[in-house]
Amino acid sequence: MSETSLPQPLHDALLDVLGATGLLTDTTDTDPFCTDWRALYHGRCAAVLRPASTEECAKAVALCHAHGVPMVPQGGNTSMVGGATPDTSGAAVVISTTRMNRVHAIDHADLTMTVEAGVTLKAAQDAAAAQGLLLPLSISSEGSADIGGVLATNAGGNNTVRYGNARELALGLEAVLPDGSVLDVMRKLRKDNTGYALRQLLIGAEGTLGIITRAVIQLQPAPRSRETALCAVGGAAQALELFAAFRKQDPSAIHAFEFMSGTSMGLVNTLIDGATLPLEEPAPAYVLVELASPRADDSLRTLMETVLGEALESGLVTDAVLAESESQRQALWVLREEHAEAQKRAGASVKNDVSVPLAAIPALIAQATEACEALVPGLRVAPFGHIGDGNIHFNLVQPEGADPKAFLAQDHAIMDAVADIVRGLGGSFSAEHGVGQLKAYMMPAWRGGAELETMRRIKAAIDPANLMNPGKIFPAA
Amino acid sequence: MSETSLPQPLHDALLDVLGATGLLTDTTDTDPFCTDWRALYHGRCAAVLRPASTEECAKAVALCHAHGVPMVPQGGNTSMVGGATPDTSGAAVVISTTRMNRVHAIDHADLTMTVEAGVTLKAAQDAAAAQGLLLPLSISSEGSADIGGVLATNAGGNNTVRYGNARELALGLEAVLPDGSVLDVMRKLRKDNTGYALRQLLIGAEGTLGIITRAVIQLQPAPRSRETALCAVGGAAQALELFAAFRKQDPSAIHAFEFMSGTSMGLVNTLIDGATLPLEEPAPAYVLVELASPRADDSLRTLMETVLGEALESGLVTDAVLAESESQRQALWVLREEHAEAQKRAGASVKNDVSVPLAAIPALIAQATEACEALVPGLRVAPFGHIGDGNIHFNLVQPEGADPKAFLAQDHAIMDAVADIVRGLGGSFSAEHGVGQLKAYMMPAWRGGAELETMRRIKAAIDPANLMNPGKIFPAA
Repeated sequence: MSETSLPQPLHDALLDVLGATGLLTDTTDTDPFCTDWRALYHGRCAAVLRPASTEECAKAVALCHAHGVPMVPQGGNTSMVGGATPDTSGAAVVISTTRMNRVHAIDHADLTMTVEAGVTLKAAQDAAAAQGLLLPLSISSEGSADIGGVLATNAGGNNTVRYGNARELALGLEAVLPDGSVLDVMRKLRKDNTGYALRQLLIGAEGTLGIITRAVIQLQPAPRSRETALCAVGGAAQALELFAAFRKQDPSAIHAFEFMSGTSMGLVNTLIDGATLPLEEPAPAYVLVELASPRADDSLRTLMETVLGEALESGLVTDAVLAESESQRQALWVLREEHAEAQKRAGASVKNDVSVPLAAIPALIAQATEACEALVPGLRVAPFGHIGDGNIHFNLVQPEGADPKAFLAQDHAIMDAVADIVRGLGGSFSAEHGVGQLKAYMMPAWRGGAELETMRRIKAAIDPANLMNPGKIFPAA
Repeated sequence: MSETSLPQPLHDALLDVLGATGLLTDTTDTDPFCTDWRALYHGRCAAVLRPASTEECAKAVALCHAHGVPMVPQGGNTSMVGGATPDTSGAAVVISTTRMNRVHAIDHADLTMTVEAGVTLKAAQDAAAAQGLLLPLSISSEGSADIGGVLATNAGGNNTVRYGNARELALGLEAVLPDGSVLDVMRKLRKDNTGYALRQLLIGAEGTLGIITRAVIQLQPAPRSRETALCAVGGAAQALELFAAFRKQDPSAIHAFEFMSGTSMGLVNTLIDGATLPLEEPAPAYVLVELASPRADDSLRTLMETVLGEALESGLVTDAVLAESESQRQALWVLREEHAEAQKRAGASVKNDVSVPLAAIPALIAQATEACEALVPGLRVAPFGHIGDGNIHFNLVQPEGADPKAFLAQDHAIMDAVADIVRGLGGSFSAEHGVGQLKAYMMPAWRGGAELETMRRIKAAIDPANLMNPGKIFPAA
């Protein structure tokens, strides 16, 4: 137990602004803020600042700016890429948004929620649901991830196929800029062509341009009908064909369209208690499709039965089961949600959160499978993911009975092999999780030239002293 | 007929890059590029450059950059705010995108169109429709406006209520930056969290950060059912209540939801040949609602009849007519599309393209009506517009028989009065048309402080010499 190393004048000024509750300096208190969710990074910080309002946040940032102290914004601390973890120097402060946690208003005319950054996504979803509305963003970390973090990382998830990423859901935004000034674009306007898209720029900037403090989020009427089906298909090409068939009928009905390889589903069946495949026999691949609509009529059921009926008849789908109750629906979703856990139980694995154009998904899977099997004979190719968005978690599980360490020694070779193929197909090395620290080194190769140069110029223009979340997105020069 | 004043070395280098077809220097040829669509501005230019490819455009921009020559990007030249018109100095060149006019590809797996900037919106719509797809953006200037201009101004229109503005439709973008480097973010990815939102930033920047040269546009399946109705309502509050009733059932079915004041509809009825109100008697206000879906079933008809049935029963809607054929549908749309023309025929008018949060629309109309009537007794308050987006064209028509010039002498007093009310209601002074030259002076008052300062920093970072579309968005310092 020891005090961290905040310069005394800054400490006193921050204490004055934030109060004792808002300023953590004991390492016992600050340590949890210095390690990322995956425990890949273990940093240190000079203090954790916990402002309770935008005003407090702005004052604290202005003080840090004046003292040249780097700042690491942090929400629920669920980054997959070390995006909210300070470096090991101990020079930076972490600025946690968790105390800015009020839902200000839900507007039924505009279907919007005005919310502070520290509200967890789950709490925001619940506040909307309590008024018969839907906040159409769902990710597995939603119980901890907060609105500020979700926006800073432009989170995706299961419903992106219908509603877009977090960026598309934010109608208004407030952020504290690196110098402590407050950017207030909290307008509730669907049409407002008056200058640059600052809101969109701050969203997804991973805290490198400022700290998001409030947002106006667009809501939807809550669904009143829902149809969920698990389908056995021959592979990714057939899954895409099924997606196109649903989309042709009504793209707005598709709330989720998820792909699971037979290998990965096999692991779920074997290693997850109570996960039972409700189909006659195992298949090369599976699709979980969920249709939803605020309409209370039976048109979704008709749509589901029509498309699946034709697909079964043509052989595109070889078997299918429809959820006939909420408990059956949840059982089907278990078969989708437990892939990461099942893979963990199967031994060491290498993860690739990649995206490609839809048409390239079969090529991605075929080429990456061949490349990875050549590298490590016997490894288990276990892709799954949001195929409707072109987002595949192309995960590789160690050969059965092999030494996990020996397998993980190959992780960079495997990742590089997958990355080469993704790149050749016009894809991205990070679909959902962002760049953070983990992938910053990839930026010059993938986003180099005018793209990275323009990003650097914007960063330097808004944060000339490089004080806001340094070391994220941009590799060290 | 005379030659313009391009420096000879630059002239020769540009001629080498662009060829004779791509370089206009005779004022007879260049004059049409120097006047805006509304004929509010009459500028001069040193030449018009007409590159036929991104490569030519990049080389031409690099040359202009090297010579310190300002550049004014221009698409279909349909700006409502002088956004594509050079100033009167004659120092700038106009860079016209019209020769970059190829539709490269339509991708049925991804539902995207890869298109060059100079393709008109209409041509792009037609190319999509020819393959059974919908490009869901529609504006009145679509026959001339091109994709580059539509994106540079983040165009809106009738279908924003369903599909968002142009920014939401672009999945990929290519632009030539002010120094001639090419920003290539032509990725067809729905999930790609790898750095700043440069695409979104360039879109809506009105050509001040670069010249958009290509884009990947998201398409939709073409509608196979459509229901259109004209409804008589008591006013804006009732129109909003009706909007909420449709939205509660199925927001994705609402392709357009348009408001027309009784006064404006009266002008259409009186002054437009063949425009006949198909209702029993005139009403205080009207709504044109269009539902559409790719589904071929009768669920839209049911939805329309259910919502309108309840609204008629409760008295929310006092009368309504459903289009029973395509010609009836088009006749209803005439009653929406002819308001600008009817107002023109009624004499001088003052236009305000404003937006407010939905809940504030009745207050906007009430307060602005009172303020304008106090300023000019007898003027005709004739608002109409995209009420589902909060976007009202709050137009004022001169008193009957009054002197148009005397009325127009009051135009700034009227606009200021409306602007004050819009601002008090959290609205915007430009919903759809952008800032351009016309409204640049309003930026400091409306978007001042950290917002305008951040925009200025971004502009200076990407275009340090202020060569790209100078004088637009930002007022002279």
